[in-house]
Amino acid sequence: MADFLTRHHDPAERGFASDNYAGVHPEVLDALARANDGHVTSYGADPYTAAATEVLRSHFGEQAEVFFMFNGTGANVVSLQAMTERWDAVICAETAHIHADECGAPEKIAGLKLLTVPTPDGKLTPALIDIQAFGFGDEHRAQPRVVSITQSTELGTLYTAAEITALCAHAHDLGMFVHIDGARIANAAAALGVPLRSFTTDAGVDIISFGGTKNGLMYGEAIVVLNPAAVRGLLFLCKAAMQLSSKMRFVGAQFECLMSGDLWLRSAQHANAMARRLASAVADIPGLTITREGQANAVFAVLPRDVTSRLQEQFHFYVWSEHTGEVRWMCAFDTTEQDVDDFAEAIRKEMASSVR
Amino acid sequence: MADFLTRHHDPAERGFASDNYAGVHPEVLDALARANDGHVTSYGADPYTAAATEVLRSHFGEQAEVFFMFNGTGANVVSLQAMTERWDAVICAETAHIHADECGAPEKIAGLKLLTVPTPDGKLTPALIDIQAFGFGDEHRAQPRVVSITQSTELGTLYTAAEITALCAHAHDLGMFVHIDGARIANAAAALGVPLRSFTTDAGVDIISFGGTKNGLMYGEAIVVLNPAAVRGLLFLCKAAMQLSSKMRFVGAQFECLMSGDLWLRSAQHANAMARRLASAVADIPGLTITREGQANAVFAVLPRDVTSRLQEQFHFYVWSEHTGEVRWMCAFDTTEQDVDDFAEAIRKEMASSVR
Amino acid sequence: MADFLTRHHDPAERGFASDNYAGVHPEVLDALARANDGHVTSYGADPYTAAATEVLRSHFGEQAEVFFMFNGTGANVVSLQAMTERWDAVICAETAHIHADECGAPEKIAGLKLLTVPTPDGKLTPALIDIQAFGFGDEHRAQPRVVSITQSTELGTLYTAAEITALCAHAHDLGMFVHIDGARIANAAAALGVPLRSFTTDAGVDIISFGGTKNGLMYGEAIVVLNPAAVRGLLFLCKAAMQLSSKMRFVGAQFECLMSGDLWLRSAQHANAMARRLASAVADIPGLTITREGQANAVFAVLPRDVTSRLQEQFHFYVWSEHTGEVRWMCAFDTTEQDVDDFAEAIRKEMASSVR
Amino acid sequence: MADFLTRHHDPAERGFASDNYAGVHPEVLDALARANDGHVTSYGADPYTAAATEVLRSHFGEQAEVFFMFNGTGANVVSLQAMTERWDAVICAETAHIHADECGAPEKIAGLKLLTVPTPDGKLTPALIDIQAFGFGDEHRAQPRVVSITQSTELGTLYTAAEITALCAHAHDLGMFVHIDGARIANAAAALGVPLRSFTTDAGVDIISFGGTKNGLMYGEAIVVLNPAAVRGLLFLCKAAMQLSSKMRFVGAQFECLMSGDLWLRSAQHANAMARRLASAVADIPGLTITREGQANAVFAVLPRDVTSRLQEQFHFYVWSEHTGEVRWMCAFDTTEQDVDDFAEAIRKEMASSVR
Repeated sequence: MADFLTRHHDPAERGFASDNYAGVHPEVLDALARANDGHVTSYGADPYTAAATEVLRSHFGEQAEVFFMFNGTGANVVSLQAMTERWDAVICAETAHIHADECGAPEKIAGLKLLTVPTPDGKLTPALIDIQAFGFGDEHRAQPRVVSITQSTELGTLYTAAEITALCAHAHDLGMFVHIDGARIANAAAALGVPLRSFTTDAGVDIISFGGTKNGLMYGEAIVVLNPAAVRGLLFLCKAAMQLSSKMRFVGAQFECLMSGDLWLRSAQHANAMARRLASAVADIPGLTITREGQANAVFAVLPRDVTSRLQEQFHFYVWSEHTGEVRWMCAFDTTEQDVDDFAEAIRKEMASSVR
Repeated sequence: MADFLTRHHDPAERGFASDNYAGVHPEVLDALARANDGHVTSYGADPYTAAATEVLRSHFGEQAEVFFMFNGTGANVVSLQAMTERWDAVICAETAHIHADECGAPEKIAGLKLLTVPTPDGKLTPALIDIQAFGFGDEHRAQPRVVSITQSTELGTLYTAAEITALCAHAHDLGMFVHIDGARIANAAAALGVPLRSFTTDAGVDIISFGGTKNGLMYGEAIVVLNPAAVRGLLFLCKAAMQLSSKMRFVGAQFECLMSGDLWLRSAQHANAMARRLASAVADIPGLTITREGQANAVFAVLPRDVTSRLQEQFHFYVWSEHTGEVRWMCAFDTTEQDVDDFAEAIRKEMASSVR
Repeated sequence: MADFLTRHHDPAERGFASDNYAGVHPEVLDALARANDGHVTSYGADPYTAAATEVLRSHFGEQAEVFFMFNGTGANVVSLQAMTERWDAVICAETAHIHADECGAPEKIAGLKLLTVPTPDGKLTPALIDIQAFGFGDEHRAQPRVVSITQSTELGTLYTAAEITALCAHAHDLGMFVHIDGARIANAAAALGVPLRSFTTDAGVDIISFGGTKNGLMYGEAIVVLNPAAVRGLLFLCKAAMQLSSKMRFVGAQFECLMSGDLWLRSAQHANAMARRLASAVADIPGLTITREGQANAVFAVLPRDVTSRLQEQFHFYVWSEHTGEVRWMCAFDTTEQDVDDFAEAIRKEMASSVR
Repeated sequence: MADFLTRHHDPAERGFASDNYAGVHPEVLDALARANDGHVTSYGADPYTAAATEVLRSHFGEQAEVFFMFNGTGANVVSLQAMTERWDAVICAETAHIHADECGAPEKIAGLKLLTVPTPDGKLTPALIDIQAFGFGDEHRAQPRVVSITQSTELGTLYTAAEITALCAHAHDLGMFVHIDGARIANAAAALGVPLRSFTTDAGVDIISFGGTKNGLMYGEAIVVLNPAAVRGLLFLCKAAMQLSSKMRFVGAQFECLMSGDLWLRSAQHANAMARRLASAVADIPGLTITREGQANAVFAVLPRDVTSRLQEQFHFYVWSEHTGEVRWMCAFDTTEQDVDDFAEAIRKEMASSVR
């Protein structure tokens, strides 16, 4: 036993920077231990991967095919590869994570061309899709093949089931497929108060990057194929994209734990509730403006830059836009009411002494 | 607590298929728990990643730069990308994992051309390198830039420190760099009975894919840059290659646990010893031939196909060559003497009843 | 002699669709014949390639390096590759040919991420560059490394030498390079009435895709490197990008012919003059609006769709925007005054009978 | 008229370095002039491209689809892309041009993994294919999807129609397609004395890179799809691979000229005959060994290095193997009997004074 190893961090410290600053839910840690010991087949042919696949099918339908990945970038890029030919393009919002935050992985790993659309709130609509959905059959233009949306969006907003249904109908009419970047899909379902399949399978979505890490897993995301006719070669693409875990049982065990009971929902509901608590607690502070109708586990606000600076000395969080000074506060499965209240009090105090 | 979750496998079952059929060393599981709770910065700016980096530097020298990756394919491809221009090529043995077992990831993800060389034992030599190291400056030929070797090799053989030193001198004379695929580098050090740096840093190696998963980690490999002048852009390449873990602290914690004491060496020595025990136990069986001078944790043998078939009904292991009937038996950190003895006895028994 | 071969087209027919609908200038055909017969070294080590290189240096400075390519897509993509690392991005106008009209070649061939900016007139400015020039050092964002502008632009507009100088200064301050897509660079020089180097070498531009095909060549474009320190590996990139012509002498002979005297300028001035003549001839027609301040060899106009349809039955030209009904009329080196006058008369006539 | 332009080479000088050192056949130059003047639609929608397509169909069957490319590297890479998924591999001889001489374009442009096989004579056989045709369905191995052969081969050897038929049957049985790199396919047909379709369409070949440049064109190769069910997306792939010529009529005109009469055959027969004449003329020289049973337009020989050096001062040709001193002498459509006789005499003279 490596007794000399010590903790390098304060387990009581929690901030509002990102849901991936949080650690692992204790139930997930237990599941990892339960899956340990002995030998099982590697690369996914193990009973934990099989069990997790079945659990995800119970949410999304028996036709669903599931491939476990290391991270969200991998899930997004491989999902898009599976639906596209080499000459195809993907339509997404200008704020989409695949465009803004993956160091060009879609272009560099998969040769995907992204056709971006400015949006007011991070959400695409059929009309916004049409801005880029043209040139079909013209060899001078990369062919629009997939619409990629994020649920909940990078701006904390949500698509309703009806909105996604309309998007899918429009995309399918154009011969295109629909992908959901679901890094925070659990937060979306919790906020909407509907089953996962209501705005995915039932809405006509073709494929999901189903997020686990931001909802309390250590690592691991899942590609959930809702429409197997839309994809080709995922078995090979996962490996070639360097996303195939050898000790896959530990990814499967985490997902089984997360999704077989209500852990996924409890955690997401809690994170959302903490964000609502925070938004409520600071909404009346003069000089601070909540900038987006927060629906999931994010709060966006504009406040004086000197206040932001002083707050960041006490709590981790990010400035979302250097231009406007807008900040983003994220809540996680482990954010406590006390955390929120302490933070809200600090905000109120620093706002009161703003030099602005 | 998810009490309804049950174990889906028999923790007492262990085979000889691969060291990645094994689970996680208990000390590593403890380290994961210790790193949990509270919030730390994501994507590697956390104290566990920093600690693991320092520990690896203690093995490889203070100049070493460390980047943690999800898996070996990622570590290999990104290492090679970091040392190559778009028009470069990599010389490797025909048996190299990067050529034979990664679904073309080097070509498909990184556009690398692999120039392969047949070898008797999975090992390159200066003379074997010369078979492909030509055409420098000729724009019709992808430019040889890196020599990639595997230590211990895919055939269970080892390079001595002197051999690697000679390889590096030759490669450097040609203006090339040297990469080690070290998926089983700990087994190599244990078998050679020398410090890791003796056949890496001190031998002139430029970069290592340092393996953790096959030596008892849950997931995680490290790129260890020994010669920072040989690489460019690793910070970006890791992200663009979809290998950047958000909750990186858990990769760091595993590596700190593995490498800060002697866990890495104990585990590797044990796996090697079990392979030696197995080879000794079956060496005298008539009709069975040990085909390679096993030095690390693998045993290769040729035995009658009917025996192989009956043994595979009882123990997991792979046929290495369908052509010759050669099989590969791998031992892991958790293989017990009893496992080996039971397997050897089964081999002896089935050989006795071979119909050949 | 293949006497049975017949002409398949009417050599007297000329339209306004594109300058690449035109054929080859007679002087260029003569130059091709002059370079024929006998054997010369292939792949560029021939005296015609050498002569053309010297001629281009006489325009752009002795430091210039020249690489001849088959087409503009090749020249653009290889130029950008030569200045970028695998993790880099290129900033361009939303209307840039590299973004809109190359079937995603930059992304698919070179893994380049394009960061696009909406512009009123196809022209970037330092302020417009700043919209995308951020995130330097942040591994989550592909690194902005090159600003690519088109001269003359896809909308027929021009950058002045002062404007390009300011762009280059700004880009260089940010650690970025500047690329000109010069498919119609001769038209730009002719319209500005300045030497080529005044808005390229002297303005600080790093590299040019120098267009020949649209100015009377059969095929062939040139990458002209103005700042050799900005590029790496062009010798290899040209070959790996499948742009290295074996019988290169015929590309060289065309460029020597075009650029050693004033053919390039005569042809471009003529095409520009024909566009001006056309714009003047139709400017006063009620219901027809010239939409852009044409400066080079293009005229953009909005006219009733029924008129457009009837005109397209008589003359080739393209609708530029299905949305607004804007059309584009291009003039070439071989467009005659009579062609223009006939076309203008037809426009006037059809406008008079518009049912709108 | 650019009277100041002068010839930079001696049109009477011809060597034995490569058939791409030759220029353009005079009939082809005439065809280029005939296609000039006036405006025709660009990018292939012109009557010359249509005519050339029909002419190629007259050789290969009405089902054939034709796409014109700039060069052989482009034709090869795009052909292979059109038949492969992102996770596929191509089996070829170790001497294949796609492996040895294209700066890694297949890997770098298309992400293709090449699985090479050593051969005695540059020719694959069903048994040689089997060395690499395994692992179907195993996600750890790039999936063998295409067999690529060269006709005539890089070593001047030929496949008979029966040999190609057997190769195709074997490949198709394995679920693979067959590609011919036909850079010198006319020389092969001429040497075999059979129609082009006898060893292509009729043999079961799926796609051809049909060479024009080495047989007297200025530039231009054709992808001829014999089995349209084997390919996808060529319209888009040609553009995205930067191989779509805007003034395509000039490629079409060349191919129509070459293939509509017997120019292709006359030229190839002549080049082959000159190679036979050369081989015969030197076969009896003591100390010189003809190393390969030359069948097309190449002669391979081993002779003393000092002789090679002195000969290279008088005639252009290449050393094929630095290791063995083997040289390659290529004849072209314009090689004369006098050229051959002069060269043979020089060889004889230098051999007589060899210091070896």
